[in-house]
Amino acid sequence: MACLDPMVMLEEVESMCIKVLLVRRLLLRTSCYALLRIYIYKGTTKKMKITREILDHSGKTMSLNEILTIDVKPGWKKGTKITFPEKGNEHPNTIPADIIFVIDEKPHNVFTREGNDLIVTQKIFLAEALAGCTVNLTTLDGRHLTVVINNVVHPEYEEVVPREGMPLPKDPTKKGNLRIKFNIKFPTRLTSDQKAGMKKVLAG
Amino acid sequence: MACLDPMVMLEEVESMCIKVLLVRRLLLRTSCYALLRIYIYKGTTKKMKITREILDHSGKTMSLNEILTIDVKPGWKKGTKITFPEKGNEHPNTIPADIIFVIDEKPHNVFTREGNDLIVTQKIFLAEALAGCTVNLTTLDGRHLTVVINNVVHPEYEEVVPREGMPLPKDPTKKGNLRIKFNIKFPTRLTSDQKAGMKKVLAG
Repeated sequence: MACLDPMVMLEEVESMCIKVLLVRRLLLRTSCYALLRIYIYKGTTKKMKITREILDHSGKTMSLNEILTIDVKPGWKKGTKITFPEKGNEHPNTIPADIIFVIDEKPHNVFTREGNDLIVTQKIFLAEALAGCTVNLTTLDGRHLTVVINNVVHPEYEEVVPREGMPLPKDPTKKGNLRIKFNIKFPTRLTSDQKAGMKKVLAG
Repeated sequence: MACLDPMVMLEEVESMCIKVLLVRRLLLRTSCYALLRIYIYKGTTKKMKITREILDHSGKTMSLNEILTIDVKPGWKKGTKITFPEKGNEHPNTIPADIIFVIDEKPHNVFTREGNDLIVTQKIFLAEALAGCTVNLTTLDGRHLTVVINNVVHPEYEEVVPREGMPLPKDPTKKGNLRIKFNIKFPTRLTSDQKAGMKKVLAG
């Protein structure tokens, strides 16, 4: 049997994009899917062209192009399903299958997501961890963020920047937190003088 | 039906002891088990008294006490099975079940085991991590071990002490390694002077 044309509307956007997986839940044991990359941080409306087989009055099969509109809400999560009921191919005496899009997150090269929070891991030198440092980040919507850290940064330290995470799906005016974790780069060697200096400073 | 008496030979020994789980693999859907704590680092011989039902010549059931001897080899691993074939209760027209002991490791309060290696996590202060430290340990067989560390200890640093791990089951004269991991305690606060001192020392 004919399968829905795999969709080719691939759109790679800058960051925190998602894959949309088209799953054809079939009564006929055949499935096809397409990947669609869209931007979930701000939300968007996506129009998807599908070609499906329908039956005319006489029961003859004909092809029909149709546009499905997906209203992607800011902050949508992995696993969110959008169902278009009975939009599969029509066949005599069977109910057409649903078309279901399943949201899947594509890994981002800077941020990871934990619920509504965004996590970023920053590499810093030990001197910065102890004496203070400044973290410069570009948010998903392209703003520059400068976070000044005066606390001592230890390996489990987390700097929480409120309301710089993902928008809450139920209320996109609110946002989760941005959590900065640290990977502290220790010196590989210290001279005897440095060791003595360290002891003195930390004992002081 | 009568079940084997749960064994009560509980013997708590100093360290790296294991639980021996008696599993009665039954043809008769009944099971009983006993826990036995023994010492696996040096190996031992363990005698286990069981009470089982046997059939006499006339087919009548009678109780019999029996001693099973387990020869625990140094370095035995979790999951090791010792089978005593057909030592379960006897019933007419059925083959008696096997008695199987399964070695299970009891968590030790200092060491954990990874294969043949022993792992210990040592808490040290940042000054020690940077300026050097000495780790004092008591081995599983009660020896005192002093490990001097001159390298800079970073959060992923591991000090490997060769041949102080668990004995190899196939050749107990050989041993795995002891691996010392570190949990570095950072100062919670530093004064401005300390921060300046840090920068100076680490830049030097």
